[in-house]
Amino acid sequence: MSTRSATHLLISCPDRPGIVAGVSRFLFEQGANIVEADQYATEPEGGTFYMRMAFRLEGGSPDDFERSFVADVAEPFGMEWRLAYPDEPRRVAVLVSREEHCLLDLLWRARRGDFDAQIVHVISNHPDHEADVAAFGVPYTHIPSGDGPSAAEDQMAAVLAGNVELVVLARYMRILSGGFLERVGVPFINIHHSFLPAFPGAEPYARAAERGVKIIGATAHYVTEELDEGPIVEQDVARVSHRHSTEELAAIGRDIERIVLARAVGWHLQDRVIVHENRTVVF
Amino acid sequence: MSTRSATHLLISCPDRPGIVAGVSRFLFEQGANIVEADQYATEPEGGTFYMRMAFRLEGGSPDDFERSFVADVAEPFGMEWRLAYPDEPRRVAVLVSREEHCLLDLLWRARRGDFDAQIVHVISNHPDHEADVAAFGVPYTHIPSGDGPSAAEDQMAAVLAGNVELVVLARYMRILSGGFLERVGVPFINIHHSFLPAFPGAEPYARAAERGVKIIGATAHYVTEELDEGPIVEQDVARVSHRHSTEELAAIGRDIERIVLARAVGWHLQDRVIVHENRTVVF
Amino acid sequence: MSTRSATHLLISCPDRPGIVAGVSRFLFEQGANIVEADQYATEPEGGTFYMRMAFRLEGGSPDDFERSFVADVAEPFGMEWRLAYPDEPRRVAVLVSREEHCLLDLLWRARRGDFDAQIVHVISNHPDHEADVAAFGVPYTHIPSGDGPSAAEDQMAAVLAGNVELVVLARYMRILSGGFLERVGVPFINIHHSFLPAFPGAEPYARAAERGVKIIGATAHYVTEELDEGPIVEQDVARVSHRHSTEELAAIGRDIERIVLARAVGWHLQDRVIVHENRTVVF
Amino acid sequence: MSTRSATHLLISCPDRPGIVAGVSRFLFEQGANIVEADQYATEPEGGTFYMRMAFRLEGGSPDDFERSFVADVAEPFGMEWRLAYPDEPRRVAVLVSREEHCLLDLLWRARRGDFDAQIVHVISNHPDHEADVAAFGVPYTHIPSGDGPSAAEDQMAAVLAGNVELVVLARYMRILSGGFLERVGVPFINIHHSFLPAFPGAEPYARAAERGVKIIGATAHYVTEELDEGPIVEQDVARVSHRHSTEELAAIGRDIERIVLARAVGWHLQDRVIVHENRTVVF
Repeated sequence: MSTRSATHLLISCPDRPGIVAGVSRFLFEQGANIVEADQYATEPEGGTFYMRMAFRLEGGSPDDFERSFVADVAEPFGMEWRLAYPDEPRRVAVLVSREEHCLLDLLWRARRGDFDAQIVHVISNHPDHEADVAAFGVPYTHIPSGDGPSAAEDQMAAVLAGNVELVVLARYMRILSGGFLERVGVPFINIHHSFLPAFPGAEPYARAAERGVKIIGATAHYVTEELDEGPIVEQDVARVSHRHSTEELAAIGRDIERIVLARAVGWHLQDRVIVHENRTVVF
Repeated sequence: MSTRSATHLLISCPDRPGIVAGVSRFLFEQGANIVEADQYATEPEGGTFYMRMAFRLEGGSPDDFERSFVADVAEPFGMEWRLAYPDEPRRVAVLVSREEHCLLDLLWRARRGDFDAQIVHVISNHPDHEADVAAFGVPYTHIPSGDGPSAAEDQMAAVLAGNVELVVLARYMRILSGGFLERVGVPFINIHHSFLPAFPGAEPYARAAERGVKIIGATAHYVTEELDEGPIVEQDVARVSHRHSTEELAAIGRDIERIVLARAVGWHLQDRVIVHENRTVVF
Repeated sequence: MSTRSATHLLISCPDRPGIVAGVSRFLFEQGANIVEADQYATEPEGGTFYMRMAFRLEGGSPDDFERSFVADVAEPFGMEWRLAYPDEPRRVAVLVSREEHCLLDLLWRARRGDFDAQIVHVISNHPDHEADVAAFGVPYTHIPSGDGPSAAEDQMAAVLAGNVELVVLARYMRILSGGFLERVGVPFINIHHSFLPAFPGAEPYARAAERGVKIIGATAHYVTEELDEGPIVEQDVARVSHRHSTEELAAIGRDIERIVLARAVGWHLQDRVIVHENRTVVF
Repeated sequence: MSTRSATHLLISCPDRPGIVAGVSRFLFEQGANIVEADQYATEPEGGTFYMRMAFRLEGGSPDDFERSFVADVAEPFGMEWRLAYPDEPRRVAVLVSREEHCLLDLLWRARRGDFDAQIVHVISNHPDHEADVAAFGVPYTHIPSGDGPSAAEDQMAAVLAGNVELVVLARYMRILSGGFLERVGVPFINIHHSFLPAFPGAEPYARAAERGVKIIGATAHYVTEELDEGPIVEQDVARVSHRHSTEELAAIGRDIERIVLARAVGWHLQDRVIVHENRTVVF
């Protein structure tokens, strides 16, 4: 379901008859060849309508295309919309603390070309990953937490703001302030090592062992000011038993975490995720 | 994702620009309110295009609607198509041998209203299930295999042909001839107790134990003349270990079989399944 | 892994060297043929030791066997222990409210002989299931909630106390008092329709839809006075998406609930479950 | 369930009463502290008995321990047995072709200390992975296939024979001769990119797409002379749909392959796997 050489159009608007007809006629008249189309309405009638179109545009200027789209479709239907062109690989930064499994996994996948994106910076409050990251030719900035959260956030904002379109928290274990998120001004995707809403916050594997659950999981979600409360993009789980210590739960969990995070990042970069009232529509 | 009070339109045709625009404009002009839309093209360009639309029609006669659809859309695009209206609950027959778990599960679900269908007949080559089936108010015909496959097929064809729109083989352990399938002339869905293409044919659980697999499964597929080779609608699996005997594999498998079969039957009855070159598109 | 024609011995005691040697030598000297053996120690050293032995005893009286076991093994090692003999099929009661899927599933499995037990009574605060239960030849008592929880508990205790060895709450939607649990005095297994500790209490499917989780689940646990806080015996999950309404989540969940509950009940009846500090060891 | 600082004892012998008593008494008398014990008999009576004991030995010489074990236990019961001591980290070689995901995953896990083993050599018929492997400080030998399979096998045997205790085929796409396996003389674990016995041999993802399966998988197995027919150690699966191209199936499959392979290698290195008539017992 890769649509990476296609233009992506994301739409949301109040539902009403004629939206699909309007959008698809516009694309047809512009000579666009639709590769993928998904839609979802929150209610049978009167809800919110969401749509993702992936299409190939032969010739024509994006500016002309957008101008016509706004006039002919977006304004008449009162749409919020976004267009993403295939010649714009996204710039992504990764923040990480001590655990390196998610970081390495993202670097491998990016190098393979699995994402339509470039990892342009890795920031860590630990110095340990410098050689690993250098092997992928990616700049690494060690920003210790020693001078307090606010100093670290200032340094990180200086690196990130205006420089990236997505920040991935790949087991970054510090809480980020709302002000910092705002200053950077792009989506943040976090991997949390439990199947939320179970075990939000600290030490989820220890608490899973304590509670005696038979299944553990991981959750990738957009970051909001409220810890582990943002819109969930993807989750997955694994079976465990009374025989597993907290350390063994963590080892099993590492495999879930990196796969769940990679799926969420990949879908985001293919413009498949729309946030709707703290939930996600994943096309 | 139930669309049971909606009209369903299924389309397949050679892919080319303008199909979505054409169909959606037609539905808009007919006053149809689209509830769900799915599409799939086998190739980015030049393949086969498949579409399912679920919509609500306010007023108007189905005959007029169909006549206009053929003239305005289906013929210009060279479509194969099918329309299903919500006031037409499907008539379903179930064929079963000795194992009753899939039969009972289908009867429970049908009674709950989980399917948009009525089970109108159960046929078995065993007499054992008569009381169970009677409790659901469904006629039960015992057709023993003693007189040979051809005599049994004659008797079954007399009950089924022209009377049902779907036949479900709920662990029916006899092979049906191509001639019989043709005489009945409706889709047959079978549940096979392995994850095909592994272990087609007889005794799949014994062979799974013999081979030492760590996962077993079940497969619901449309029946064709070639045994266990028809288009797969749904599959699911469960983990097993060296500790499980063949009988224990069968017990675990029963839970997979009835769920996989129920999903496949439910999707078929919601017109979500299109067959394409011995594969299925499941919308 | 059925050990149904075997005697089951469950042991817990402070861990120390020589336990396995002591128990296995005793069984060997008694002429017991060990069919299955499982053990677990909470710590490498100095924790609690748990063991389950399934074995066949040829001849000899259970009383003599138990007397020798206590003198030779249980007392020297300071064991808590329990012996269950295969000629003692357990008596089980089922409590149920409006949703019948778990009830029907348990009745059907018991009839097949999947459990080493007999369902001897069904109690419901709804009258609807009488015919279904009668078809399995099981007594059904309708105890309406109208006269208040305490009156209903009195009536239920009169039916259950001294009459059953296990009570299964098969989607019984009333909270039971600690006093009632004590009066009945046997284990209660409940099925909760979420993957605990996520969504304890009321309306878990609605809250799952509201939170936008990508996975739902069910949990079978022993009942304690604290709602949905008892030791977890089994859990399982299914993937869902933004497209599923609360009703559709509930429909998907029904299939998980009945399977998770059946596994937990089956393991309990095979003496595979030991409770340890609000967690379970499942052998 | 790690037992890495423990001594491992693996036993197989004809089943008969008294084996557990004999082994556990011997260990008790030797002052061994049992950490984990698992056993399995192929039949209730008269089959083959398998056992794994993990224990800590305080003091004493391994030689004395083994001599006593043979005299007191192994010979009287006619056992095949193997003892593995924790101070003997295993030497592992990895063979790989073009696809690097399994190789990188193994190198990373070995570096973390997830395996009780050292990867001492990587051999590939492709030159591409040299820098990646060097970053982990592991020797890399490029042995091109150009001079024919027999010349390549000679070169590989020269590197491997007598030098390693396990060879992992981490997507090594050449068939190895029985003579070569014999010359190297240690277990080989292969990852095959399908859920065997479905799709053995070449191009399993293309054939999965062609057949229209709804689930794909991967299988880790010991290598025998017959291609993809050796004893299965581990399998896992993922759901797919008609929307996935062969390339997308391969991408999804990569995540299953590396996890299944890592589990199988980890279990083998913890002496948890016993081969029994082309099947495995995994403790």
